[in-house]
Amino acid sequence: MINIKKDTKYIYINKNFIKLYSYLKKNKNISNIIILLDNNTKKFCLYYLLKKINNFKKKIIILKIKSGEYNKNIYTCIKIFNKLILYKIDKNSILINLGGGVITDLGGFIASIYKRGINYINIPTTLLGMVDASIGGKNGINFNNYKNEIGIINKPKLILINIKFINSLSKNDIFSGLGELFKYGIIYNKKYWNYLKKIDFNKLKNIKWKKIIYKAILIKNKIVNKDPNEYYGFRKILNFGHTIGHAIESLNLYKKKYISHGEAISLGMICESWISNKINKLNKKEYNEILKILLRYYNIKKIDNKYLNKIYKFIENDKKNNNNKINFSLLNKIGKCVFNINIKKKIILNSIKIMNNINVK
Amino acid sequence: MINIKKDTKYIYINKNFIKLYSYLKKNKNISNIIILLDNNTKKFCLYYLLKKINNFKKKIIILKIKSGEYNKNIYTCIKIFNKLILYKIDKNSILINLGGGVITDLGGFIASIYKRGINYINIPTTLLGMVDASIGGKNGINFNNYKNEIGIINKPKLILINIKFINSLSKNDIFSGLGELFKYGIIYNKKYWNYLKKIDFNKLKNIKWKKIIYKAILIKNKIVNKDPNEYYGFRKILNFGHTIGHAIESLNLYKKKYISHGEAISLGMICESWISNKINKLNKKEYNEILKILLRYYNIKKIDNKYLNKIYKFIENDKKNNNNKINFSLLNKIGKCVFNINIKKKIILNSIKIMNNINVK
Repeated sequence: MINIKKDTKYIYINKNFIKLYSYLKKNKNISNIIILLDNNTKKFCLYYLLKKINNFKKKIIILKIKSGEYNKNIYTCIKIFNKLILYKIDKNSILINLGGGVITDLGGFIASIYKRGINYINIPTTLLGMVDASIGGKNGINFNNYKNEIGIINKPKLILINIKFINSLSKNDIFSGLGELFKYGIIYNKKYWNYLKKIDFNKLKNIKWKKIIYKAILIKNKIVNKDPNEYYGFRKILNFGHTIGHAIESLNLYKKKYISHGEAISLGMICESWISNKINKLNKKEYNEILKILLRYYNIKKIDNKYLNKIYKFIENDKKNNNNKINFSLLNKIGKCVFNINIKKKIILNSIKIMNNINVK
Repeated sequence: MINIKKDTKYIYINKNFIKLYSYLKKNKNISNIIILLDNNTKKFCLYYLLKKINNFKKKIIILKIKSGEYNKNIYTCIKIFNKLILYKIDKNSILINLGGGVITDLGGFIASIYKRGINYINIPTTLLGMVDASIGGKNGINFNNYKNEIGIINKPKLILINIKFINSLSKNDIFSGLGELFKYGIIYNKKYWNYLKKIDFNKLKNIKWKKIIYKAILIKNKIVNKDPNEYYGFRKILNFGHTIGHAIESLNLYKKKYISHGEAISLGMICESWISNKINKLNKKEYNEILKILLRYYNIKKIDNKYLNKIYKFIENDKKNNNNKINFSLLNKIGKCVFNINIKKKIILNSIKIMNNINVK
């Protein structure tokens, strides 16, 4: 593993909020502390945070939103802006996002545009948040069911990962993050993929989360730092599985049905691995290997033929597209991903039909 | 005048859109051109722009919004996002803002957050836009009548200033920008102030706009480049006159009455010059000089006593505040402004009462 400690200086794992304490102590200029959370993190995580910050003589304001992807929208932003103004939150305030991807995406966006930007800290409380959503500075909201359509890239001041929060998660929550872990191995680090393959995540005991998460963050950071603002395109490899995966999520948002991010992007990775084998260099053996591992944890959710056009409409609005061409990030092999590969409609829809017909033995 | 040409490389005056042509020619990757405009710029300015860009085989989409500060809000943004999605505007599109401060503020904000950011170009068509709103990268929208409460700092790729558009402006439009010109002299460049003093803007003929605008941009850029992201605070001197001026604008937005930006910030400068004389180092002679020149072009609009608390509530939410303290940028003398000066409520309200009682001879 390459040493990228310099780039991860603002990320701390399992330090029990000691770093938060020293940050607040050092930055005397901070006026108010706002904590953005949802029902779950209010119940399971707020206590540990308050214990650490109650000592400071700062005004602490707690803003609660409803949990769920469906609420990551502009109307939730409007409600929060109203409250920030009501409480006279000034530019020297700091926003702490205590929650999963919905909270860190939404809170990061709000902090980036309220009064043209206030500082913020991410405390991801889900596996997905710890290894993906809170890392890399991308934030944003959905718009008309389009995933993360509105947002910016702006890093938090600190990311504090407290492994003990994983114990409060359901198996479903954990599997929602697992997909991204596999993705990091598949696109950039075969060693990590081989390491994950050997773990049985169906048995949630004795899993070395600290090591798994630390390695995932190192990989994501390495990719992000090669192209922090997505100028060159390299960062797009992180979108493997997401072109179709996001469309599956959008379809479910549209149908007001729940699908976890891990499930959606795993189905997306299954489709896009098939395309990688069909159009790009991924060999059949590795395609089958990806399929086998992902199907250990995720079931195929068939996409009814009547929704194929709707799915395609969502894909047509993917952020990687250019000049009405649909661009994919595809695999050459496990550990090597390329980007900006234009794929035609027929192949895309075929990959979904193939996925629909996979029989799990 | 100090040479800051390096920092103004993306700003072009009176080049008849030649630079736009070469920019579009150079950046072959651009997919769509979106033009954001209002009724006025559609009528008076669009023709000149289309003449230059019609040659390119790009999809051109024209989005029109209602003119007026009242429409610089989140609901206008929502309407525009809906259209951008409808027209499948991808990340390689470029947004051209053709209009005054409302268009460049709103359009710059939209470009900065749509799909986490697309490129944009400002073509300011009002004096205020040319010398202030379009320069410096600040963009944003009003929220609940609070001025520019939501936004970010993100520079356009190009700023194209076409002096001939000034001829399409009314006297009222011109005076709306004039206040900022005086402000640049007052806060940072006495020579420019003395230069402006000698011009009779009541007679709009034979005014050397190119020279006036060029110098204004140089001054603004010099200040902005000392503190582009407002980390150090120096950029706050540009807010002289705006703490009270913005509150006057907010009050008028709230009352659904029109006041031009130049008028509001001139009244703000009158109040804040009085505070500068009372609390800071500005001497009486220079206070009177500022008063005399501003009153040549702007009438006192009295603020009824019943609105004083409302005005104060707006001031309390000013972006410069910290820890519930109201921070002003105040004058030491003409050409020298300092920032982060905490002023008490009584003095602030007094300055407004004094302004109310100024008798123009």
